[in-house]
Amino acid sequence: MANATQGHMTLPVEVGQEEVVLDLYKRWQADALRDSDGTTMPDSLAEQDCDIYSVLCIVRADQAYAKAHPEYLHRKYLSSFPMTAMTNELVIKPLEGYCSEKYELDNNSDPKRHWEVRNRTTGDVVSVDQWDFDAESGTVIVRECTPYHEYTASVMVRQVWDSVSMYNALTNGWTGDKIRSLDPYHPECRAHLKRYFAQWLEEHPNTSVVRFTTFAFLFVIDANEQNQDIYRDWTGYGETVSPEALDDFEKKYGYRLTPEDFVDAGYYNGTYKVPSKRYLDWMAFIQKFVADFAGELVGMAHAAGKKAAMFQGDHWIGTEPFLPSYQEIGIDINVGAVEDGVALRRLTDSAGDQVKEARFYPYFFPDVFREGNNPVTESMSNWVKIRRAMLHKPLDRIGYGGYLSLANKFPQFIDHVTQISDEFGTYRQNSAGTESAKIGGKVAVLNAWGLARSWLQNQAQDQRFYVPPRPDVMELVGNNPLECLAGLPFDVEFISFEDILANGIADDIKVIINTGDANSAWSGGEYWGNPQIVTALREFVGKGGGLLGICDPSAHLQNGRFFQLGDVFGLEKETSLTMGRVAQPVQLDGDHYLAQCLTGEEDFGNLSYVYSQAHDMSVIASQGQHLAMTARQYGEGRSVYLGNLPFSMTNARLLQHVLVWLSKSENESYAWLSDSALVDACYYPATEKATVVNYSSEPQQLEVTDKSGEKQTITLEGYEWRWMDA
Amino acid sequence: MANATQGHMTLPVEVGQEEVVLDLYKRWQADALRDSDGTTMPDSLAEQDCDIYSVLCIVRADQAYAKAHPEYLHRKYLSSFPMTAMTNELVIKPLEGYCSEKYELDNNSDPKRHWEVRNRTTGDVVSVDQWDFDAESGTVIVRECTPYHEYTASVMVRQVWDSVSMYNALTNGWTGDKIRSLDPYHPECRAHLKRYFAQWLEEHPNTSVVRFTTFAFLFVIDANEQNQDIYRDWTGYGETVSPEALDDFEKKYGYRLTPEDFVDAGYYNGTYKVPSKRYLDWMAFIQKFVADFAGELVGMAHAAGKKAAMFQGDHWIGTEPFLPSYQEIGIDINVGAVEDGVALRRLTDSAGDQVKEARFYPYFFPDVFREGNNPVTESMSNWVKIRRAMLHKPLDRIGYGGYLSLANKFPQFIDHVTQISDEFGTYRQNSAGTESAKIGGKVAVLNAWGLARSWLQNQAQDQRFYVPPRPDVMELVGNNPLECLAGLPFDVEFISFEDILANGIADDIKVIINTGDANSAWSGGEYWGNPQIVTALREFVGKGGGLLGICDPSAHLQNGRFFQLGDVFGLEKETSLTMGRVAQPVQLDGDHYLAQCLTGEEDFGNLSYVYSQAHDMSVIASQGQHLAMTARQYGEGRSVYLGNLPFSMTNARLLQHVLVWLSKSENESYAWLSDSALVDACYYPATEKATVVNYSSEPQQLEVTDKSGEKQTITLEGYEWRWMDA
Repeated sequence: MANATQGHMTLPVEVGQEEVVLDLYKRWQADALRDSDGTTMPDSLAEQDCDIYSVLCIVRADQAYAKAHPEYLHRKYLSSFPMTAMTNELVIKPLEGYCSEKYELDNNSDPKRHWEVRNRTTGDVVSVDQWDFDAESGTVIVRECTPYHEYTASVMVRQVWDSVSMYNALTNGWTGDKIRSLDPYHPECRAHLKRYFAQWLEEHPNTSVVRFTTFAFLFVIDANEQNQDIYRDWTGYGETVSPEALDDFEKKYGYRLTPEDFVDAGYYNGTYKVPSKRYLDWMAFIQKFVADFAGELVGMAHAAGKKAAMFQGDHWIGTEPFLPSYQEIGIDINVGAVEDGVALRRLTDSAGDQVKEARFYPYFFPDVFREGNNPVTESMSNWVKIRRAMLHKPLDRIGYGGYLSLANKFPQFIDHVTQISDEFGTYRQNSAGTESAKIGGKVAVLNAWGLARSWLQNQAQDQRFYVPPRPDVMELVGNNPLECLAGLPFDVEFISFEDILANGIADDIKVIINTGDANSAWSGGEYWGNPQIVTALREFVGKGGGLLGICDPSAHLQNGRFFQLGDVFGLEKETSLTMGRVAQPVQLDGDHYLAQCLTGEEDFGNLSYVYSQAHDMSVIASQGQHLAMTARQYGEGRSVYLGNLPFSMTNARLLQHVLVWLSKSENESYAWLSDSALVDACYYPATEKATVVNYSSEPQQLEVTDKSGEKQTITLEGYEWRWMDA
Repeated sequence: MANATQGHMTLPVEVGQEEVVLDLYKRWQADALRDSDGTTMPDSLAEQDCDIYSVLCIVRADQAYAKAHPEYLHRKYLSSFPMTAMTNELVIKPLEGYCSEKYELDNNSDPKRHWEVRNRTTGDVVSVDQWDFDAESGTVIVRECTPYHEYTASVMVRQVWDSVSMYNALTNGWTGDKIRSLDPYHPECRAHLKRYFAQWLEEHPNTSVVRFTTFAFLFVIDANEQNQDIYRDWTGYGETVSPEALDDFEKKYGYRLTPEDFVDAGYYNGTYKVPSKRYLDWMAFIQKFVADFAGELVGMAHAAGKKAAMFQGDHWIGTEPFLPSYQEIGIDINVGAVEDGVALRRLTDSAGDQVKEARFYPYFFPDVFREGNNPVTESMSNWVKIRRAMLHKPLDRIGYGGYLSLANKFPQFIDHVTQISDEFGTYRQNSAGTESAKIGGKVAVLNAWGLARSWLQNQAQDQRFYVPPRPDVMELVGNNPLECLAGLPFDVEFISFEDILANGIADDIKVIINTGDANSAWSGGEYWGNPQIVTALREFVGKGGGLLGICDPSAHLQNGRFFQLGDVFGLEKETSLTMGRVAQPVQLDGDHYLAQCLTGEEDFGNLSYVYSQAHDMSVIASQGQHLAMTARQYGEGRSVYLGNLPFSMTNARLLQHVLVWLSKSENESYAWLSDSALVDACYYPATEKATVVNYSSEPQQLEVTDKSGEKQTITLEGYEWRWMDA
């Protein structure tokens, strides 16, 4: 392993696969070895002269302790499914419909103090005098009901089967005990986990990197009686609750959260929802706690002479890398699971000097590495998206996970990864960890989460009706401007409405994007009912800024408008309230700069139901009478509306043109800027290297201007990625 | 004209076309002659031995008086289009963007008393101290504005060009003066119009029927600076306002209406909107006034020995035939403009013993009767829809309008109408003005308007994006269950939410239909936030009733549900708030009774975005993961959901099966009930006649059971309509 120091890949190992490991270590340019969930480090490899990553999920690590201490298990609030009272009395079995192998009613929580019964037809809380919990039958008996009103009981449950363990058992056929996760919020539990970790450090002398499968709390997954997932929220805080934490929150914040703050009328504060102030307080409370706990563990690892890596996933609630509190933990390496450009930017764009390592898909698991399936297909589809995003923010390392023995059965895949790693090495060499040159001005994506949820996929409603082949891999359908944006040469930041309320809009922001379905956290929902927000955005555009709205920008029904910035866009959306407004035949403005950018291959997705409400607006594209793309001058600034923007390379290039126009840069000449749909180009000022990448399987030709202003014509093979002097 | 007494058609006449008239009078089985807008009665015909209809639009009749009395013209509130204040001062030209030939600022209304300036970003009224009206420039100057807030001025305007006159000038090329309409609310004006009418009666000795082109106020049409319609509401009360009526309203109801009650944040109380209590009060106030005024005119006609006919359209606001107050007017003949089954039922289903006369489309105008166009196409498309609706409620007469000379240029059309009139005559003979036998139980359509707006087309959002070839003819696109229902053998009534709040649900109602887009008056909007409504519907189904929801039934976001009756349907719609709920692959229940009714030709229109929220629900049809048709037992009753139901004969038959199942009548055997998509059948208990109608141009075969329970196989030619003994 002579070239270990020149490598850049973390290679999964497996007992019995030592020779394969040694072979791939060279071919894949590895410089680190790792175990995975389900595999262990062979002794012969553990002492190699390279980084040894050892996986640890601390809250799952000591199952004997977890079994002995049900009072320290992860807890959460569940609302019973609503039941309609047919008479004056109602018997609610709160866990009916939920997975009985996963949840138990928490008998450490006093029902009358920690549970809540609600009339869901009126929204009222039912007085504790009107109901009782019968522990024997596990039922809540509600008296003096109003017939034909619906009722729910919100109860605290403890989780006796960790969601990841459940997933591996059901999807990957793992046998063995049902794993339980411990909640380190309890001081005794926290102390025990630290003792356990101290011992673990002693027992892993060869480990150079502790690869934390994150720290404390899992994202939210609920399952039904058939063990099927019925609810998922990869960034939800629903499973962070305990009576003790609720008490401490009350002491710290001066008010008490109720069960309704968590069950949220059955919506459970999904990340796609605009968060309430109370829920944001709870998140901050949990973030502080988890950062403290994680900081202690990382400190112990450092004291033992080891680095700390965090895998962004699983029990990562409270340690999301874009949170400012994340930088206090002391993590050395961020590992992200990356399937596309957005996931890559979620990894590479977070602040801090952590090494950024992408764990690629497919994971070496039997769901993909099975007879008759070609894992190269998925990998190539991912890689073409990832590498265009990689151009614009530096990625430091790559890696894989799972069973190497499975991957080794697919020699074509082995060669394919060899190629990926070669390309990655060349990228590292030429970019040297620096950024590509950016164009236009800073682009801000405005939503209800801002920085905290940067580069999180803003799912559109079509996503709910898509059954993906693999539930663990995000596959986005429908509106997807972020994937388009991920591979474009713009400075991007994510800002929230609260940022604007607190600080206004920063001077360096040239274009603001608001994209998402109405009511969602991405569009902004009720924030658009705040005159301060509306005024700030109007002023931003009025004084020269660019505004891009996609799908339902500024959507909030109030004061006669659904699009609150309808005056800026010159548009309105039909929501049954303006049916009397007469449809005028659409006139396309074919002379507009943006109309000239269209190739005819653009895809605007679903019908917009958006119509013109201004005379001085340009329709660039429409689907029948439904406006698909419009542009307008507003004051000294500009606005563009797009009905939907599913990801395609053509749509990505359209987005580039739109952002250039919105930042009034359409007359600038940029070096190494592609205007071809299928070829990306950029250059690195720090290394004076330029690069062009063919996104397609067919040969492509590109005309670009180099740094000296000379035109170059470049011909690329299918999928070719070429580097040149800039 | 020997067979005049046996005729059933009102024939339009035209000077110079006397011979054509005499020929068609026989061939079309006419028994009445009429003049039209733009044509007059030839002297030679006026004395014929048949009914002579003479058109009179009283409020347009005396233009000299109208020109001399601008203070009596129709007035209305218009809101200026919102303007954004870029500084602290804003100058609003209220009528900018509106048709300058149609509207004038009303200088009889004191701006400070009758107008209103609003901040549309906050929704607040701007104090009258902060603005002034400059009569010279026609502008409103607003001071102390908040920059980047939007402002509107709601002003009272008078109309100096009647919308119908404008339509005829722009669409049909009529020249001549711009007609103005008078508002009979003013006592002097009312007295003058009655004097005018008295003289008119004297001057029309040969007239046997005064065909009132209704009475006082026009439906709402707004036009822009290019004279294009920008807003239409055929049943809106926007053009009924005057300072005097507002004062009287205040005296009668004890509170004063404001400009905002009419401009309604720019929505203008469209009929598709859930009406406010204040707007309903205003409607009742106007209805009382118009019924009184119309009653005086009708009384005068009767005193002169003439009958009174009312054309349902044009200036018909306040005299809509389903209003109980309509029966007090004394009208003898209701004339409806009928293009389809729904329009026919809107005419035939109203209470009272008025003769029901359908004025068919196409109107003999150059827009249809032009070279290269075949008017038979439109007429046949209408006729197949109309005749299936005609089977179930008696129609007494038919008629046409316009320029006979135009129609006479199309001999194929003349023959086609001869055929229609023959078929109509046979229908009259066999049905003898009685109803077909009905099946199941009474079906109630529940919306915010109920009886008052019975059989009004419930337009869906797609309608807004459809540019019809002829703006005066309703052409419905998308969801259209009423057209399906119009030709089915059920007792139908329209009920409102207020009916349920006041009186509950009548015992004879077996099935309730709620259909429409969310937020619309048809679905019900905020009414679904009232627990009394939700409870009444749940109880209705729980105790054995049937509930049919189409599109967005019971939609109102509250208490964790968008479909407030989601518990009854077992469904929810995705509105971005439940994106975390995991899509489960749809399982169709092919054994369900309704699944067995499917032919595969059904059309469920747009994707529903509706998903299952119950285990005990049957999915009958889906579009991918979007549920298109579901059925469920709830208590002792049943519910069915349909995503959309555009009109087709297959969909109409599906609706029949659904209503039969919902009324638990699927095991009943009904005589003369068709189960073929393309053939209708029914029978008339009073005359013991049965009939079968082929909807299609191809021969069809039908198996039906006759009254004695015997099966009959009937073969029909294309479009054939056959009568038999039942």
